Formats: sequence, C-alpha cells, structure tokens
Amino acid sequence: MTTQRALRAISIVCFALIFGGAATAQAADALPSWEDGKAKESIIAFVANVTQEGSSDFVPPNERIAVFDNDGTLWAERPMYFQVLFALDRVKALAPHHPEWEDKEPFASLLKGDVKGAMADGMKSVVEIIMATHAGMTTAEFETIVSDWIATAKHPTTKRPFTEMVYQPMLELLAYLRENGFKTFIVSGGGIEFMRPWSEKVYGVPPEQVIGSSIKVKFEMHGGKPVLVRLPELDFYDDKEGKPVAIHQQIGRRPIAAFGNSDGDLQMLQWTTAGQGPRFALYVHHTDGEREWAYDRNASMGRLDKGLEEAKAKDWTVVDMKQDWKVVYPSTTTSSTRAQDGFTKK
Amino acid sequence: MTTQRALRAISIVCFALIFGGAATAQAADALPSWEDGKAKESIIAFVANVTQEGSSDFVPPNERIAVFDNDGTLWAERPMYFQVLFALDRVKALAPHHPEWEDKEPFASLLKGDVKGAMADGMKSVVEIIMATHAGMTTAEFETIVSDWIATAKHPTTKRPFTEMVYQPMLELLAYLRENGFKTFIVSGGGIEFMRPWSEKVYGVPPEQVIGSSIKVKFEMHGGKPVLVRLPELDFYDDKEGKPVAIHQQIGRRPIAAFGNSDGDLQMLQWTTAGQGPRFALYVHHTDGEREWAYDRNASMGRLDKGLEEAKAKDWTVVDMKQDWKVVYPSTTTSSTRAQDGFTKK
Repeated sequence: MTTQRALRAISIVCFALIFGGAATAQAADALPSWEDGKAKESIIAFVANVTQEGSSDFVPPNERIAVFDNDGTLWAERPMYFQVLFALDRVKALAPHHPEWEDKEPFASLLKGDVKGAMADGMKSVVEIIMATHAGMTTAEFETIVSDWIATAKHPTTKRPFTEMVYQPMLELLAYLRENGFKTFIVSGGGIEFMRPWSEKVYGVPPEQVIGSSIKVKFEMHGGKPVLVRLPELDFYDDKEGKPVAIHQQIGRRPIAAFGNSDGDLQMLQWTTAGQGPRFALYVHHTDGEREWAYDRNASMGRLDKGLEEAKAKDWTVVDMKQDWKVVYPSTTTSSTRAQDGFTKK
Repeated sequence: MTTQRALRAISIVCFALIFGGAATAQAADALPSWEDGKAKESIIAFVANVTQEGSSDFVPPNERIAVFDNDGTLWAERPMYFQVLFALDRVKALAPHHPEWEDKEPFASLLKGDVKGAMADGMKSVVEIIMATHAGMTTAEFETIVSDWIATAKHPTTKRPFTEMVYQPMLELLAYLRENGFKTFIVSGGGIEFMRPWSEKVYGVPPEQVIGSSIKVKFEMHGGKPVLVRLPELDFYDDKEGKPVAIHQQIGRRPIAAFGNSDGDLQMLQWTTAGQGPRFALYVHHTDGEREWAYDRNASMGRLDKGLEEAKAKDWTVVDMKQDWKVVYPSTTTSSTRAQDGFTKK
C-alpha cells in the first residue's frame, strides 16, 4: 500500500465513520418494535424524503422540528393522567401539615380514598388539588419532590415505575428522528416542571425542548440568594388551541412533524401540516385493551373523536397499537419475565 | 505500509479529525477581535475549566447553557432601541390607513417628526406605538414585515444595515462557546418575534433559542387554514426579574454563563451565578464614545449602575469596550473603507 493509497483509504473510512451513522439509521431496523405495515412505512418514507439532499422536498436539519404530545402518546394515561396520581400522593404526604383538609373538599374525600367524590366539582377540584400540591415552594424544591416521586412511585395496576410506562416504539421513533437530524420537542398539556426532571434521561429530550402547562413563578431574594417561587396561579394551559400558540412562543418555527393521540392534539397537527413543503402527522390510536387500554371516541381523558375523522380525511398516519406495535413497554430492569407480563404480543 | 499499520493510521487521523476541532477552538485565536487582557483571559479560563474532562469543575455539554442579552450586548442600542426605530418606520408606513392618527397622540407628533413630543407620556406612548404596529396581523405577516425592514433599513447615523451594528467580538464569543459545546440563548427585553427572523443568520442562534418580550397570539381558522393572530395585549415583559422567570419557563435549566450590559440584566446574572459549580457573568461596559457610545450610570436606556457595583463586589468580568475590543462592528460587505469609518481602533 503506497502512502497515497493509504491516504485515500483514510478519507473513505473517515467519510464512512462520520456519515455512515445516518445511512444505517435509515434502515428499517431503527424501529425494531414496529410491525411492518403502513404506519412504519409512512414514517420511514417521510424521513427518507426530507433528508434526501438535492430533492425538492429536502428540509435542512435546522428546520427538522418534530413535536410530540406526552400523555397517551409517549407514555400511558390510565387509570388517569400520571400527574394526577402524583398530586394525590402529594395530598397524602402534605395532609399532616393541613389539618383543615379533614373537612375541606376536595381534600376530605381524597384522604378517605374517595377519588370520585373528590372530583365531584370537575375541573375546579383538579385545579384546587394542583395548586395545593404544585405551588408554594421554590422551583428547586419542586424539582426534588418530582424527582423523588418518579424514582419510587409505582403504577397502581402494572406496578411498574412510571418511567417504564413509556412506549418502546415511540422511544425508538424519537431516537430515529434525532439520528436523522431532527430536533425533538415535547408539547404536552401536562405540567412542564413535572416532565423536565426526567425527560432527558427517559426520552432523550432536554428540559429546553419540553413545553407544557405552567403556573406562574416569581423571582425573590431569600437571604441574599435568588430563588423562583411557584405561585398558585395558572400561567399557561397547553392544550388544544394552546399547543400551536406555545409552539409559536417557545419554538418560533413551525414543526414539520407532529405526533399526538387525542383531540387535544388536533390543533397542533393542523398547525404543523398547514405549512409549506412535506409535513407529517401521526395519531397513536389506543386499540389494545389487552396490553394497554382501548379507548377513543367516548373517553373522558385522551378522547380521540374529531381527530380520528380529520386523520382519515387528510390521510394522516394512524397507529393501531394492537396491530402496529410488537411491544408496548420497554423491558424492565426489575422484571426478567417481560414476556409473562402481557406487554409483549403473543 | 502494511494493512495493519494503515488501519492504525486511519484511527489516529479519524480521531484527530473528529476531536481536533475542539482543541483548536480553545486557542486564543478564537477571539481575534479581543485585546489580550483580563476580560479575554477570564473567558478562556472559564471555558477551559468547564470543558476539561476529569476535572471537578467539568460540566457536561448538555448543561453548558449560555444566555445573552441582545440590545447593548450583542448589538448597539443608540440613538434608541432599534425595535423602536422599526416601530417608528411602521407608523409612517401605516399612516395612510389611519387618517385618525393626524390628531391622535402619540402618532400625531411622531408623524411630524417630533419623537420627543410623541414620547411625552413615557411607557404609555411606547406601548401604544408597539401595539399599533406589532399587532393585528398574523404571525406569518409580521415575520415578513420584520424581514423586509431588517433587509433594507439603515441606522440613522452610521448608515449601516442594523445587522451590521452587531458587535464583532461578541459574534466571535458566541461561536467560541458553541465550538466548546455550549448552547447559546438570547434573553432580551426586546420583542421575541422582532429577533427571530434574523437571529439564526446573524448570531447563529436559532428561533427556539431566542427568548424575549411577547404579545399574545390567538389560534384561528381563516378559510379552513389555521393562523395565529397577534393581539394588542402584552403576554410577557422579559426584563429585570422577568429574565430569570423566562429562563426557567423556556429553558428549564439554570445557565452557567450570562452576558449583559445593563441593570435590566442584573437578575439574570444573579440567577446564573447563584447555581452550584463554576459560573461566569460578564457585563459589556459602554466606554467607547468614539467608535460606539459611552454611557452607564445615568443612561435612560441601558443604564448600568447597580450592576456595575455588584460586578465589582462579586468579581464578575467587565468588558471595557474601548480597551478590550480591537474592533466593534464586523467589516461590511458594502463598505471597503472600514478603517475610515472610525469603527476600528486607531
């Protein structure tokens, strides 16, 4: 081998090392938990299309913005939103400091284990519980509370940690998009500070790419040290029409791909697909009552009704969880009997 | 050369190609427009410190968040904030559609060229002018208006395009930090949608890393197509105590480095430096009345008073523009007589 030939070999190998990753990621195996079928094909075709240099549909990496709903899209949302379960646990933990809650609704019912009774006033009850449990401390204190809870709490029926109630196929999809130059964002109706302490570790989505509902915070000096205090006042409700608004205010650029599971995500999918050039919209349809939960048009949480109609009319991708996903949840570190959990497809 | 030796050579060259960039960037020449001195040294020492793997001060790349004020820190702010000049131009452009402005302040005075008279009511006048010129259209329409203006408007005294009134040493600093794994954000009192159309091209800061003041927007369907309409209502004022609040809500992680030029940036610098581990705070001090403008304690815009005291007390870096910067503005594409412009140091 001459030196010239060696240098040529070096260039080729370096090129392969540097750029080979993207090509490999485009192979079908980047989504091993997805069954072959229309949903998987539509994802791969879209990514191939926008990343093909020289093509008229090519989208430069800085414009490859993908937005994901969280509850019901990246992780489960049954028996109720996990953040509500967190809030109920917080009510129990805080009860000793609030003797007045014994006679005060919705806390009194909650502490007797009567969740349905506590929710008698609907949204008003939820807001009271959220404000009592999510405000009145510094942002650093709240981050610790969430981190401790997520590290220890278990799902009421599956007994899994909540961070293992995420959808394995969606984890693969997030990684696949990032390997292809996409910047992935979460745009959730859930609380922004409830997701940020663990979103990077679990989803690979850093705090600055998490958008959600928020309460107001106030800058104060405590003993010469600046803190941000969480106030019992809604700042922004990131659902329905709020999602495109939050995307505009926080990202400032229209996404080219959007992923959701409910009518609460519809405006986000509409806003995303109304842009110029190639666009992608996907609904996760909860069809698997055995491995997960089956619900759509008549659900009280995560209702998918109008969105399903619009998806059909506009030929958006609809994932049939039962048909399209080989597994639902990732294998656990605590359980070696994954196949027996009923989480893998028989 | 044997094949084995060739492979070994390949590995070494690849390693150098992949990792060599960062090492080169750490050389002093990454900041060629900065005079050698305390300010430049403090920047380089901080970056070397947090990027030194194995050191107790090492900060992983995902936590290397740097925040920059815009007006007076990344570009000039005289004779008044450039966004105000934009608003005044918009009043003139819109006047034919608003015959009522002839008798209505602050517009009547403005249209007669009496800026001082127009500002007689202070903040109230400014808000009226901003709302009349920044609201009432879709977000896409406003983006076009800003893009057109920034491409054509000239600074009243230097006659330069406003995008050439940015500070060359700060452009180098932004690039130097990014080459060392930092994520750079703008956190400005200025309007977020006034900066986003050009921040990526001029500063290398993409829209999703721009934070600023904002007005409310509303999701609407216009003829079956979703749009966001800009409303004449303040959403968030990103100044003073607002800056740490916005950093928390939009980044969700405390920066490790903060750069400002006025008392309006003080809380951002306090919040940044109050975190654990190595932190960096820098004030740009406007000391150069010849090449730029000299002002600090008694300025009506960009006042630096309390901040200067705190910087001294806490040993923050203070850039003396006259001493520390070899050049102020980048060389222009339109002018080949840069040295004669008075922008380079004699």
